[in-house]
Amino acid sequence: MVGNTFGYLFRVTTWGESHGKAVGCVVDGCPAGLELREEDIQRELDRRRPKSAISTARREKDEVVILSGVFEGKTLGTPISMLVYNRDVNSKPYEEIKHLFRPGHADYTYQAKFGLRDWRGGGRSSGRETVARVMAGAIAKKILQRFGIRLVGFTREIAGIRCDINPEEYDLDEIFRLAESNAVRCPDEDVARRMEETILKAKAEGDSVGGIAEVIARGVPAGLGEPVFFKLDAYLAFALMSVPAVKGVEIGAGFKVAKMRGSECNDPIVLKEGKIGFATNNAGGILGGISNGEDIVVRVAIKPTPSISKPQKTVNWVKMVEDKIVVKGRHDPCIVPRAIPVLEAMVALVLVDCMMMQGLIPRFLG
Amino acid sequence: MVGNTFGYLFRVTTWGESHGKAVGCVVDGCPAGLELREEDIQRELDRRRPKSAISTARREKDEVVILSGVFEGKTLGTPISMLVYNRDVNSKPYEEIKHLFRPGHADYTYQAKFGLRDWRGGGRSSGRETVARVMAGAIAKKILQRFGIRLVGFTREIAGIRCDINPEEYDLDEIFRLAESNAVRCPDEDVARRMEETILKAKAEGDSVGGIAEVIARGVPAGLGEPVFFKLDAYLAFALMSVPAVKGVEIGAGFKVAKMRGSECNDPIVLKEGKIGFATNNAGGILGGISNGEDIVVRVAIKPTPSISKPQKTVNWVKMVEDKIVVKGRHDPCIVPRAIPVLEAMVALVLVDCMMMQGLIPRFLG
Amino acid sequence: MVGNTFGYLFRVTTWGESHGKAVGCVVDGCPAGLELREEDIQRELDRRRPKSAISTARREKDEVVILSGVFEGKTLGTPISMLVYNRDVNSKPYEEIKHLFRPGHADYTYQAKFGLRDWRGGGRSSGRETVARVMAGAIAKKILQRFGIRLVGFTREIAGIRCDINPEEYDLDEIFRLAESNAVRCPDEDVARRMEETILKAKAEGDSVGGIAEVIARGVPAGLGEPVFFKLDAYLAFALMSVPAVKGVEIGAGFKVAKMRGSECNDPIVLKEGKIGFATNNAGGILGGISNGEDIVVRVAIKPTPSISKPQKTVNWVKMVEDKIVVKGRHDPCIVPRAIPVLEAMVALVLVDCMMMQGLIPRFLG
Amino acid sequence: MVGNTFGYLFRVTTWGESHGKAVGCVVDGCPAGLELREEDIQRELDRRRPKSAISTARREKDEVVILSGVFEGKTLGTPISMLVYNRDVNSKPYEEIKHLFRPGHADYTYQAKFGLRDWRGGGRSSGRETVARVMAGAIAKKILQRFGIRLVGFTREIAGIRCDINPEEYDLDEIFRLAESNAVRCPDEDVARRMEETILKAKAEGDSVGGIAEVIARGVPAGLGEPVFFKLDAYLAFALMSVPAVKGVEIGAGFKVAKMRGSECNDPIVLKEGKIGFATNNAGGILGGISNGEDIVVRVAIKPTPSISKPQKTVNWVKMVEDKIVVKGRHDPCIVPRAIPVLEAMVALVLVDCMMMQGLIPRFLG
Repeated sequence: MVGNTFGYLFRVTTWGESHGKAVGCVVDGCPAGLELREEDIQRELDRRRPKSAISTARREKDEVVILSGVFEGKTLGTPISMLVYNRDVNSKPYEEIKHLFRPGHADYTYQAKFGLRDWRGGGRSSGRETVARVMAGAIAKKILQRFGIRLVGFTREIAGIRCDINPEEYDLDEIFRLAESNAVRCPDEDVARRMEETILKAKAEGDSVGGIAEVIARGVPAGLGEPVFFKLDAYLAFALMSVPAVKGVEIGAGFKVAKMRGSECNDPIVLKEGKIGFATNNAGGILGGISNGEDIVVRVAIKPTPSISKPQKTVNWVKMVEDKIVVKGRHDPCIVPRAIPVLEAMVALVLVDCMMMQGLIPRFLG
Repeated sequence: MVGNTFGYLFRVTTWGESHGKAVGCVVDGCPAGLELREEDIQRELDRRRPKSAISTARREKDEVVILSGVFEGKTLGTPISMLVYNRDVNSKPYEEIKHLFRPGHADYTYQAKFGLRDWRGGGRSSGRETVARVMAGAIAKKILQRFGIRLVGFTREIAGIRCDINPEEYDLDEIFRLAESNAVRCPDEDVARRMEETILKAKAEGDSVGGIAEVIARGVPAGLGEPVFFKLDAYLAFALMSVPAVKGVEIGAGFKVAKMRGSECNDPIVLKEGKIGFATNNAGGILGGISNGEDIVVRVAIKPTPSISKPQKTVNWVKMVEDKIVVKGRHDPCIVPRAIPVLEAMVALVLVDCMMMQGLIPRFLG
Repeated sequence: MVGNTFGYLFRVTTWGESHGKAVGCVVDGCPAGLELREEDIQRELDRRRPKSAISTARREKDEVVILSGVFEGKTLGTPISMLVYNRDVNSKPYEEIKHLFRPGHADYTYQAKFGLRDWRGGGRSSGRETVARVMAGAIAKKILQRFGIRLVGFTREIAGIRCDINPEEYDLDEIFRLAESNAVRCPDEDVARRMEETILKAKAEGDSVGGIAEVIARGVPAGLGEPVFFKLDAYLAFALMSVPAVKGVEIGAGFKVAKMRGSECNDPIVLKEGKIGFATNNAGGILGGISNGEDIVVRVAIKPTPSISKPQKTVNWVKMVEDKIVVKGRHDPCIVPRAIPVLEAMVALVLVDCMMMQGLIPRFLG
Repeated sequence: MVGNTFGYLFRVTTWGESHGKAVGCVVDGCPAGLELREEDIQRELDRRRPKSAISTARREKDEVVILSGVFEGKTLGTPISMLVYNRDVNSKPYEEIKHLFRPGHADYTYQAKFGLRDWRGGGRSSGRETVARVMAGAIAKKILQRFGIRLVGFTREIAGIRCDINPEEYDLDEIFRLAESNAVRCPDEDVARRMEETILKAKAEGDSVGGIAEVIARGVPAGLGEPVFFKLDAYLAFALMSVPAVKGVEIGAGFKVAKMRGSECNDPIVLKEGKIGFATNNAGGILGGISNGEDIVVRVAIKPTPSISKPQKTVNWVKMVEDKIVVKGRHDPCIVPRAIPVLEAMVALVLVDCMMMQGLIPRFLG
């Protein structure tokens, strides 16, 4: 009943339907004294906005308003309430199909759960809800930055086209720059071009494609994560699987460990400049659910956008007869690139929360 | 700081170190009136115990004691406290290596987090902690049974050897019978034999192997899972990733969705005997984070047991010099088969909790 | 760090500073299908607004805006975000004293806790925060009404002048009507007049007075409250003591039990129309932390408004010297009457939450 | 459903029925590195045990066993599981009255809530449950001690006989010494004698008496408590009202504020040795829900023990007829003195939790 709050000490409560008045969130537990302006939030929101031919035609400006928790440019330690008004709303195409459950969407399950639903643009189940996650994540990122933690997400694979860069060989700022320079957020320019072509081809055919996104966090201190249930990897999996369209999460070597031997999978422990470190990073920076000081590496599988214009089998639930549906609306033929800032936000929220639980963030960031 | 409690309405708090006096748990929120005897718990504990050549030589009887919450054979609605004493404990091999961090283990991260650690058998980070999960899960399973929900786990893959059965074609009791009939818990007898051989070969070489386990839940009503953060898939990912050695979690088609098109990935909605259903199950029974009435299908990647007798590079943290380690102790060369009851337990806990949140389980099961 | 959320299954998160842009809340866990319009909220907000000579001169219209969670006049089961803009704000008098901690206020403690504070109108510690509680409480009351539970608060005592009505002898609607008919919310007209005179006298002297408020809930089913920590009385005490200016909470006979004997304090158990009932109600409707079906009776002690125009000793914390302060601003000389709707809201929130925990409220109120 | 856990970062889960095998608790969130031995727990348990003519004849040794979380005399940061076996159990007197609800007890409400109950000695609703609170509180006290915080409880009033000492004039160790020197835990020897006589008189008449207990915490830093719902006073009220038999809680001047004027109630702010302080302490050390550095002062009203041997009216719920009951068993004629260590434990738990939330306690107490 209470699924709209995320976090234990750094807590985010999100609200809003896709075609309602607004979407927003309340961030509770943010330390006092953090410099925060609307621009800090807006920058991240702008990264989430659709921009190119591979994105939806819905063009929201997504202007953030901070309603509380900030005074004279600094956080008060009280709840930060933020919202974005929904402006470019067109519910017409949804009205026509409101008696048909869209395949791959939550139409049926919301109806089954709540007994009624807001059929306009998917209501609460819409990807638009992630606007609120990005707003909250922007604050989390600012906090991480103060502690020297850098975080970046990028597209690892789309429709089987894979980018093979090894993030360990790069400065994360460089990966960020490369990924942000193209529409698919893939740090390899050539691969990015092929991904984009494939997406546009699927779009032309009234279809969509899926992919894999990766997020790296560097500079994370050893010791984060609360055994035995609130492990850092468990918490990350929880956070990332809650993002719409995600169907799989893996840490470090992930599913590859199934084919490994222990002698190959175990990361040798070594001294690096006199400190404990690891020669490899199959663990993805997490051992026994606790960060080990190496890069945190997570990957998620994102399904192809369920909204496609090809006719699909479905059921008219008012008449209880089988029917066909063509989903019009305005949709991204591949959601992976726009999911990146959302995934980053979720990782940032987890890391800040775990740092607080570990006692590493003071109440006043004076 | 509070990582040892799992669940929102059906809550389990576990405690205990591998070589401490005992391991146990407290289950709070169990409905009153449920018939419960120690045999119900013992049956599941016995499934978790090592039994064959592919398991550790540590031979615990793991006899459960129920200390509270049950009166005249029925639950009272008050906390159920249970424990198992640790009897077959030999801390000697650990004493010898207590200054060396074992690769692939949580030795270093526990030290980094807590500033000290119980080095005997991995302490709290040991797989022995899962005894408590299995005890709690046994209660959850009993509840699910009353509501006609069946749950089974099995080994899908070990060291690259894959079992290709399609659970949809089977009665789950049949899968259970097949899986439980061999040491690796694989429902395909021939594949099971090959898996077993591979494990023994790795063991002989002082090494270990990983694999993939799958859990299916059938009969789950539509409507479970709390959007937007406490989604059923997010909650399952959280639960399963918290199990030691798990490095990846996927739902339904999982990572395969990355290569699919929308027209292929979306499960057509159809009428089955007059009710809403789905023609395929790429969704793994979950849409928008809410169960859709189809089988819940989850898969996890389990890393090879980190305890291997091959020499490995590590660091002596007292002297702060690099060193080599040979892990003796008593270990499973492949943990997948013994993880199955634990994974089932976690899925059961999640389902019971979600059913409670959805208001489907009364306070008194009279 | 996370003090701004109330409730376990019916959860309210409030936000907003007294002189910030707005105050508001997010209600998560409200069942779907409840008819809800802004008028339902506005009615309660209007009860909280200052109206008479005994109230502050700050005249906010307090117009509620519902931003999410309601569709076609019914709740969706998704978060309900509501806000009220702050319009009649005058921060000038606060600027003049921003270096002086006001006695009886949270100025010093906020500074000590957060390292900085919004000094305008008390910021987050202002009574204005209770606007959000009243909004959320209005929804809780609507739910209680559907289940035949009636709730009323009134002034029991002000400045030593006590109203001796026995609510058991009245229909609660009658108490409501009587209490709402005068400025002090006391159901005894004569007593009310004397209370009002006393308040105005204190006001004229630049001073303020305290009092006792009582809330009664009738029709509450037996069985609410979760032992052993989340008892109904413990939960009520938590809720009520969190209301600004409350310094004491008692249930039923309350502090009088200290002078009673067991034979006098124990309520005899009797049959009432064939059902279990109690001959007296010293228990205030709660035994062992669980409701027993009788009236829930709670009383709170409310301190005199700390903002008084008499000069008081304080400290200038910038110069760190002792000083005198005269608090101008616009204040109620007695806060008891305006606290009544807030206290009712808190009791309503507790009862709805406990009913949900007991499984008495379905997810869909169709 | 989940009422048996207390605390947010320092969490205690208690379990056990009065006549079950044992009572115990799990403490999660205790910092690592704290020296802890069973003697530390036993000392507090011994204070709770009945000792004199004014106490129950049930004579439990209450020997604590620590089962986990401690290694080589220090806490590990993992859950600390502790228990005490129930040995001196005699369920016979309860069997005779198991069809009669005892007035003033939770018999009826447990039945109403759970549909069945353990009628032996009150089951979970028994005061015996507080053994677990005292065990957990002993750890909290050890932590507070390290931070220079001293905590003491004493009897303020029994059956109208009041002790008028002003704790501000005493060293808390002195109050402790005085209170522990007599059976009623009243620091004034003469008053103590009269209280004792009154209790024995009531006992002789087959009756019982109530009273008021007070707890003082000194050395508490300013800044504890999380506005707006998780205020320090709200949290204390929650904690204390959850203790069996408590019917009222007040902070500082408490219910007296109802008769005060603002100019009298506001504590003047002054400089004490160059630091912010308060000239009086009507606030009981808490302003706006946050500690202000002065003594925390709480008082609770405790009802007379409901178990009395005088015949009382009740109902036989099996036959559903009115009946009379004489409660035999073994009971304290006044529970106030034995409640003191329990109340102290609750205050200690709250303070430690708030200190953790404020970031004042490191994860490793090295």
